[in-house]
Amino acid sequence: MTISCKEEKKETQIDQSVEVSAIDPLPSWNDTSTKKEIIAYVDAVTDKNNPNFIPIADRIGTFDNDGNLWSEQPAYFQLFFAIDRVKAMAADHPEWKNEQPFKAVLENDMEELAKQGEHGLLTLIMATHSGNTTEEFEKDVQEWVKTAKHPTKNVTYDQLVYQPMLELLQYLRANDFKTYIVSGGGVDFMRAFVTDVYGIPKEQIIGSRIKTEFDYNDGNPVIKRLPAIDFIDDKEGKPLNIQKIIGKKPVFSSGNSDGDLQMMQWAASNTYESFMLYVHHTDSIREWAYDRESHIGKLDKGLDQAIKDGWTVIDMKNDWKVIYPFELK
Amino acid sequence: MTISCKEEKKETQIDQSVEVSAIDPLPSWNDTSTKKEIIAYVDAVTDKNNPNFIPIADRIGTFDNDGNLWSEQPAYFQLFFAIDRVKAMAADHPEWKNEQPFKAVLENDMEELAKQGEHGLLTLIMATHSGNTTEEFEKDVQEWVKTAKHPTKNVTYDQLVYQPMLELLQYLRANDFKTYIVSGGGVDFMRAFVTDVYGIPKEQIIGSRIKTEFDYNDGNPVIKRLPAIDFIDDKEGKPLNIQKIIGKKPVFSSGNSDGDLQMMQWAASNTYESFMLYVHHTDSIREWAYDRESHIGKLDKGLDQAIKDGWTVIDMKNDWKVIYPFELK
Repeated sequence: MTISCKEEKKETQIDQSVEVSAIDPLPSWNDTSTKKEIIAYVDAVTDKNNPNFIPIADRIGTFDNDGNLWSEQPAYFQLFFAIDRVKAMAADHPEWKNEQPFKAVLENDMEELAKQGEHGLLTLIMATHSGNTTEEFEKDVQEWVKTAKHPTKNVTYDQLVYQPMLELLQYLRANDFKTYIVSGGGVDFMRAFVTDVYGIPKEQIIGSRIKTEFDYNDGNPVIKRLPAIDFIDDKEGKPLNIQKIIGKKPVFSSGNSDGDLQMMQWAASNTYESFMLYVHHTDSIREWAYDRESHIGKLDKGLDQAIKDGWTVIDMKNDWKVIYPFELK
Repeated sequence: MTISCKEEKKETQIDQSVEVSAIDPLPSWNDTSTKKEIIAYVDAVTDKNNPNFIPIADRIGTFDNDGNLWSEQPAYFQLFFAIDRVKAMAADHPEWKNEQPFKAVLENDMEELAKQGEHGLLTLIMATHSGNTTEEFEKDVQEWVKTAKHPTKNVTYDQLVYQPMLELLQYLRANDFKTYIVSGGGVDFMRAFVTDVYGIPKEQIIGSRIKTEFDYNDGNPVIKRLPAIDFIDDKEGKPLNIQKIIGKKPVFSSGNSDGDLQMMQWAASNTYESFMLYVHHTDSIREWAYDRESHIGKLDKGLDQAIKDGWTVIDMKNDWKVIYPFELK
């Protein structure tokens, strides 16, 4: 056997891409210009005879998570995790009954919780995301994802991923793109479940982090999660983290809010032909409709630049046949 | 064509590994117990019928760089880069003639430079590693690697990699291990050249970092390198960075100094069977001989724990047929 796998792989993938395109790689997308632009781009940059061909090693795709790969309304799902954890931990913290923001959470007083602002939110996150080891935290999240239900959709949170985006991730990977998540959400929160949901390995998840500490622990080493922010993976933080962790500029970048704008700008400056894709939440019936005025996932400056620079904008209502995988059943 | 690449890949690799083992996957290693232990481990954990089988996604290998994949004497090669940069930049900095540690560098006074201690070293690093963009810095390093010569070996630095370790990296990758560098050296310094030398892509290089800043720069965004330390990837920093960036515990870990000990301990605590490999510098003729008393690459506590816990220790003099690739010619 002298054929190397690399060579075989290439051949297989050419065959695959022919086949995939014959059977439609993006079946949950309507045949609008959005879908056509995506396919035209992928066809061009993977064609060795095209002047815009990109070598496999440089096919880096970066995807925001909240509001881009799964829903983010009426609040970031990670906040619901924090709320559920406070309730689960309350028996060990009798003082929380009289202490904000915990009191508001325990009394289901979302109005009061909102009043606690960013500081209240941070207090909640620290209380529920630190003080344990990385392994313990992972188990907490995995247990929660299996059982907790979204307040209005009434399904587990992992069912609220976007079917068309799952197809896009798969399509890009079939064309040798390396797909990364680059999210403002917590990296260890995401890592606990996204591999199964998106098919993205842990080492391709980038997110916000709290500080950690190594403890040799008499030969049973652990990494402890400390109650302090290490890095916020949002806005300028996204290209900075992409450079720190990947060390390559993305050629494909996808987001849905102004928090993704700098990542889009960074991809747009690639010397390779790059593709910038914004998800615009326009479907008030099947999902949610919001943009410039929203507190969550605000899309304002990003939308302006997308229009000005000719980036592709997904009109969720008109471009997507279905939103969630369960609609296919 | 319906066979997926994944399936084909697996078959090819089984064939390859049979072939590789028939023709010796580690030809520059003598047939000592070290080589046998490495091969026995890889054979076991890649055999689906072996109780110690490790799924491909969890085959993470982490390798220190200085003194482990290439030499580090008489000083870390990155320091020679800094020294050469000071000389190249001196015309624009007339004040350096009278300012330490620059004066010592410009006068080739290594004794005085050593006296400047850690603070002097840091000043040198900051002056030569910051103040430019990531792209400019990358070009500086690439130019240097092509032309600068080691003071005593008189070859370019990229020739001072260890041939047996190149074979080990290749052997592990042929067995579906994902090989990472986890080094105290600067991540962007390494990324500028290691892909060609070790076959490791930029996104699998982890190292120390300086702080950076995103600048939109009127539509031509750059990432600027700032004169401040962001993270030192040494000692406890290694397992912490592995968790931050990879999110998986290594099953194969290789280093040569006490700075790698925590990374070894972290790998040793894997629930999968793991392999800890220390390079012991025992060859004063072909390379250098040093361990417990050395200022560079001190191996003391690590050697004690390796002996106590039965980790594999490479005796460079007796285990390696050749040290550098150019010896093969």
